[in-house]
Amino acid sequence: MIDTALLEAFGKLLGPKGVITDRDSITPWLTDWRGRFHGQSPAILAPATTAEVASVLRLAHERRIALVPQGGNTSMVGGATPPADGNALILSLRRMNRIRSISTDANQAVCEAGVILSTLHDAAAAAGRRFPLSLAARGSATIGGLVSTNAGGTQVLRHGTMRGLVEGIEAVLPDGSIFDGLAPLKKDNRGYDLRHLLIGAEGTLGVVTAATLTLVPPITGRATVWVGVGGPQDALALLRWLQRRFGSIVEGFEVMADDCVGHVLDHIPGTRLPIATPAPWHTLIEIDLSALDDGQAAVEAALATMLAEGGIGIIDAAVAQNENQAEAFWRLRESISEAERARGPTLQFDISVPVDAMPDFMTAIAAEATGRFPGTTASSFGHLGDGNVHFHVRAPAGTADGSGWIAANGEEIARFVNDRLVARGGSISAEHGIGQMKRAELGRLSSPARLAALRAIKTAFDPDGIMNPGKLIPLASEG
Amino acid sequence: MIDTALLEAFGKLLGPKGVITDRDSITPWLTDWRGRFHGQSPAILAPATTAEVASVLRLAHERRIALVPQGGNTSMVGGATPPADGNALILSLRRMNRIRSISTDANQAVCEAGVILSTLHDAAAAAGRRFPLSLAARGSATIGGLVSTNAGGTQVLRHGTMRGLVEGIEAVLPDGSIFDGLAPLKKDNRGYDLRHLLIGAEGTLGVVTAATLTLVPPITGRATVWVGVGGPQDALALLRWLQRRFGSIVEGFEVMADDCVGHVLDHIPGTRLPIATPAPWHTLIEIDLSALDDGQAAVEAALATMLAEGGIGIIDAAVAQNENQAEAFWRLRESISEAERARGPTLQFDISVPVDAMPDFMTAIAAEATGRFPGTTASSFGHLGDGNVHFHVRAPAGTADGSGWIAANGEEIARFVNDRLVARGGSISAEHGIGQMKRAELGRLSSPARLAALRAIKTAFDPDGIMNPGKLIPLASEG
Repeated sequence: MIDTALLEAFGKLLGPKGVITDRDSITPWLTDWRGRFHGQSPAILAPATTAEVASVLRLAHERRIALVPQGGNTSMVGGATPPADGNALILSLRRMNRIRSISTDANQAVCEAGVILSTLHDAAAAAGRRFPLSLAARGSATIGGLVSTNAGGTQVLRHGTMRGLVEGIEAVLPDGSIFDGLAPLKKDNRGYDLRHLLIGAEGTLGVVTAATLTLVPPITGRATVWVGVGGPQDALALLRWLQRRFGSIVEGFEVMADDCVGHVLDHIPGTRLPIATPAPWHTLIEIDLSALDDGQAAVEAALATMLAEGGIGIIDAAVAQNENQAEAFWRLRESISEAERARGPTLQFDISVPVDAMPDFMTAIAAEATGRFPGTTASSFGHLGDGNVHFHVRAPAGTADGSGWIAANGEEIARFVNDRLVARGGSISAEHGIGQMKRAELGRLSSPARLAALRAIKTAFDPDGIMNPGKLIPLASEG
Repeated sequence: MIDTALLEAFGKLLGPKGVITDRDSITPWLTDWRGRFHGQSPAILAPATTAEVASVLRLAHERRIALVPQGGNTSMVGGATPPADGNALILSLRRMNRIRSISTDANQAVCEAGVILSTLHDAAAAAGRRFPLSLAARGSATIGGLVSTNAGGTQVLRHGTMRGLVEGIEAVLPDGSIFDGLAPLKKDNRGYDLRHLLIGAEGTLGVVTAATLTLVPPITGRATVWVGVGGPQDALALLRWLQRRFGSIVEGFEVMADDCVGHVLDHIPGTRLPIATPAPWHTLIEIDLSALDDGQAAVEAALATMLAEGGIGIIDAAVAQNENQAEAFWRLRESISEAERARGPTLQFDISVPVDAMPDFMTAIAAEATGRFPGTTASSFGHLGDGNVHFHVRAPAGTADGSGWIAANGEEIARFVNDRLVARGGSISAEHGIGQMKRAELGRLSSPARLAALRAIKTAFDPDGIMNPGKLIPLASEG
């Protein structure tokens, strides 16, 4: 039970800065990033060191007190919001915000869990390096949260998700023991891979306290290209052509249905389409020219060759002529979610299927959804090369925000989308995780083998269920 | 208990080809690849399909019968050899030898567990692609075993270990349920990563029955270069210079102490050193020229630039002028183990430390070992860019094979080496796994947090301990 005596016991471990009970200081951390999930908690614990985190978990383990690990509170699925019953304490990692070291020889940074992503970006740049993962919440999201959710973004095509950038990990397990796996071993076959198990575990198996992360060379020149195409199949053909021609320097490749782009042009001031000819689908391509001599010319020559060869349904293309144009191209892509919110209620699905299956899925599911849910529109945009797009189903035109459309239709439409994903071997969560939001659907749609394995792992690590309760795994005891 | 009735029950599930009880047919599979471990088993079960594997595991689960999964029986650590008590059945995956599909668009192959590595090499080549993992046992090792041991090799620098090449996995869990994770999802955040958990699990959590594997473009031209250097620190500086200059096309980078090479020159007929000047250390470099115009000239120009710039302790260099020379260079590297066996008894350690720490480790540990164990010689060779070398301690000159030197000294020298690895955050098994051979040392040297986590996972998946008993995890019940 959480009472004053318990909070005093935590206070003895953490000092006066380590236990926050002031309501005004707690309130912002009780609601998730998108304002959909609301919880209660009597206090935030804020340890400053790994040893302090371990002491918190030992005491919590002994007293069976539930803990909700929290970084920047930017989860898209309610993964860091405490339960509504107020029976869990928030465990904030934000005071653990040191970059312990940066090695420009080894191209690695050792970061504590509370380091904010943009802080790492700046520190890497100051050292002449780059941390190649970014996302909209970069000014708030922390390394611990990014590791625990295996975050993605627009650079996954080349550099992988967070999983691919974590070379070592330090974590405190639910009994308070410290797992020291920070040493960046490129080969290590000492049994089950605990690093990969903790990445993406959403704080349900323990608390990530630090990570050794990969840095890469800075980009000293880039080509940013907007290409209008006939359909997502053409987009995929274009991507593969570029990868054959340029290899791994294709840094990003985004695809967008024309209506997504149209909403940006309608709702975001100062935006315009980079190409002159209308197209039903668009792609935004970024190529790292740093290693090429006269790279911009090489890209333009390659595009000219491809257009001359034909075979890919390209409608029109524009190469950004300067940084301002490149930024303007990317602004179109990055404003889609904001534009759709300005338009009206939208259900957003973060989904993946095998890359080969994605073009057909994007067109077929949109057509089927709008047929099934009259008045809606549906389309998608995102990371085609990762087999991951954000699929949106929008309320009928004129539906007001707060009209209850999402509450009335969300569950049915989610089941519709998710059933079709499962039929194609896809995932109901590509990069956002499960958290609270997708937990019931994970339970409904997982095979018995998968569900039993997930539950077995959870129970093995956290038999009392004190780590981030109510997240990720629907336990058997919940029926 | 394994009796005739039980074998008949398996026979009903698998048909006459599926249960092998003939002693002559069983005997070769009771001893490991290097002849160090010997077991007993009354029968080999040989299912031909995933459904048959599932039926075997269901019955074994029901009757509490232990199973030892086996592919090509090429484990370097006794990982596929049954226990000596004869109370386990061998579960051979060799009849599951279909390549289910190859996609040249997606660059993927779906292989069953029993596909032999060289068969996949050939099939990929026939499709105009390449499977970029190879090792000495390629004519026997199977995909299931390679996945289950997270195999390495000389191409890890560019392409990663098996873990990096597995995009999807199918496995039968210990209760007989089928985990279908074959769909190659580049992003999938549906909870704990079961694929990564099964990779490298040595068959102790279930049986890998198939995998979706990454293919890459073929190599149409390569530069193979031998460079003599002053020490491993120079070798690492050379590697990093090449990676800055050539990026990811540096396909392989091997380092060898001069005495390792000397044993090859002494014991393997027809070998000669590629460079004219003696050197205390050697490197063997392979660069994929496929994407470069006039790549050989580019490599030679780069080497000339580097020599002119100075700063790296290069003593002499030779670029292979044709395929025969390239093969001869590689033969020197690949003959080291054979040459050392011809010389006399040798203890071999497959170890890793962070890449940055490896040069110092290579020189310091060899000096310390020869001081501590008078008469021995010690040195290392291997994959410097992976932070993984094979460290050898050799019996005093003139020690005969079979003299008992290894039995008398093996444990003490292993403890000496492994203690020093742990002090540097290294791994006692870089690419060969734990199996039977390193199990006691894993127990002795793991932190309480790691050991508890490994045991918890094993118990959660396989509470009856029927999957590959006596391998990988020293259980708490063993004291």
